[in-house]
Amino acid sequence: MKHKRLFSEIKADLTKVEKELDKLLAVDDPILSKTCVYLLQAGGKRMRPGFTLLSGRFFNYDFKKILPVAMAIELIHMATLVHDDVVDASLTRRGRPTLAAGWGNTVSVATGDFLFAKALEMIGKIDDPGVAKILADVSVEMCQGEIQQIWSAFDVKQNFKQYYYRIRRKTALLIGLSCRLGAMVSDGSLRHMWLLETYGHCLGIAFQIIDDILDIIADPDEMGKPVGGDIRQGIMTLPMIYALQSSGHRERLGQLLALKNKKEAQVQEVIHMIKNSDGIERSRTVVDKYINKALKHLEELPKIPAKKALRELAVFVGERSY
Amino acid sequence: MKHKRLFSEIKADLTKVEKELDKLLAVDDPILSKTCVYLLQAGGKRMRPGFTLLSGRFFNYDFKKILPVAMAIELIHMATLVHDDVVDASLTRRGRPTLAAGWGNTVSVATGDFLFAKALEMIGKIDDPGVAKILADVSVEMCQGEIQQIWSAFDVKQNFKQYYYRIRRKTALLIGLSCRLGAMVSDGSLRHMWLLETYGHCLGIAFQIIDDILDIIADPDEMGKPVGGDIRQGIMTLPMIYALQSSGHRERLGQLLALKNKKEAQVQEVIHMIKNSDGIERSRTVVDKYINKALKHLEELPKIPAKKALRELAVFVGERSY
Repeated sequence: MKHKRLFSEIKADLTKVEKELDKLLAVDDPILSKTCVYLLQAGGKRMRPGFTLLSGRFFNYDFKKILPVAMAIELIHMATLVHDDVVDASLTRRGRPTLAAGWGNTVSVATGDFLFAKALEMIGKIDDPGVAKILADVSVEMCQGEIQQIWSAFDVKQNFKQYYYRIRRKTALLIGLSCRLGAMVSDGSLRHMWLLETYGHCLGIAFQIIDDILDIIADPDEMGKPVGGDIRQGIMTLPMIYALQSSGHRERLGQLLALKNKKEAQVQEVIHMIKNSDGIERSRTVVDKYINKALKHLEELPKIPAKKALRELAVFVGERSY
Repeated sequence: MKHKRLFSEIKADLTKVEKELDKLLAVDDPILSKTCVYLLQAGGKRMRPGFTLLSGRFFNYDFKKILPVAMAIELIHMATLVHDDVVDASLTRRGRPTLAAGWGNTVSVATGDFLFAKALEMIGKIDDPGVAKILADVSVEMCQGEIQQIWSAFDVKQNFKQYYYRIRRKTALLIGLSCRLGAMVSDGSLRHMWLLETYGHCLGIAFQIIDDILDIIADPDEMGKPVGGDIRQGIMTLPMIYALQSSGHRERLGQLLALKNKKEAQVQEVIHMIKNSDGIERSRTVVDKYINKALKHLEELPKIPAKKALRELAVFVGERSY
């Protein structure tokens, strides 16, 4: 996969992170041993640890110091995904059944808790109370994002502010902090930490908007999950909010989006209406804006291979929506 | 309630813990503000913070240092209860509908995550990495206890070892650590920390066995939940394990206990068989053994009012099963 090449600069260390995750989650329990292996084998891009390692490269890079941070971040991310799949009742992720679909909600809740507890264990190994505080705060914010998603479901009156509130918490904050913390434990300056965090934050926003676009326009086989998931779950995304403003059929669109338990034909009708509005195009414009903002925040950083990798990653993320 | 009188020694500070919990969980979110208030008003005995404060009294008691520890422990406990009620599909707790019953599983998962994230936030405020490590480790162990409960459900071949493995993790470890950590942040000696932890651990074991006894013999109105919950959920408890050894109807009992989706008459038949075996009596003997062991570990501690309170608490816990 292309993103792997983009991480080639830190490939060896990223492989070590993966191995340490395997070791940490190899527990002597008949269920956890299976669910954790299942989750680890599902892969995922390990984007967040990748950002942490790359961000450390600009300063006093010390793998031993950065490792528990990268692992804690990935574990928080994994725990979140597992519980989100319970909350959203999602059946597939990355082309495979979700843990919730395969093992049921009870095992998923407990496995997610276990992953979060393991994150806490790793945080305990980080020799900097500032890092622990940041990871605690982001965990609280991520929960608040998830909760907002629950109570705002099927509410077609949602505005941009509410949308950004949610995707910041669900996605952007943690990616931004993956960058900041990599710099922080490598003695980066405040200015550089801020630049890297803003880079990651903007990339995270772009990444989530692209996910929201793909949920409407993607090829389900390529995505590894059916399209229209957000529509079924009542999650209002940027393309929908734009389409609700400008579609010639916005009244009908609003009625359908607000409908719980939509029929498959109704989901397809919604997809059709959004595709025929300017919702996708305008969302892509926003993606480009955030990708450019991300790139801009890299400019001031020292010219090292990690910088090229971060730049290419931003471009790569931006291209996912086409 | 009697246990409140038992905590009179530290009443003012326990009230402050409660107030700080109210403040910490007063968030600007339409769901979380309601779920958290609901959980806080449900009360609970705040036993764990009580043990932490009392244990600190033996040494250099400093409320400011002990507060975040007491809060983190109670938050971990609350998070666990909320997720356990999802996992166990329990409908009532402390005489009121569980969060899962009132708000549904999705809100409960997210609220539990939020409470755990808030615990992490409090742990960040504890100026001792040793404490953070202990709380991380116990969180992992508690998840393992919960997971074991899932995979061992309806398995009538369970032995005492498996039972103790589970109740140690589900209940006793955290109560033991509530005591240890109170001593630890108050500069208690290693010996004293160990004594207090063992006291709490034994009390926790006794407490859980009593819960398991009451689930069979209690008056549902006094309990605040229907009896037979463990039987319905297939959780093998000490009275059942004893009854399976000695009941005249042990074959029939084994068949019924292993049955998923029991009819109400079958649940009542199981209760009747256990009551008519020596399972309750032998379990009470074990309770007494642990209460005595708890009391024994107090003996060496300095004679201060907190010691009297801990002693009375142990006796109070022991009397719950009659």
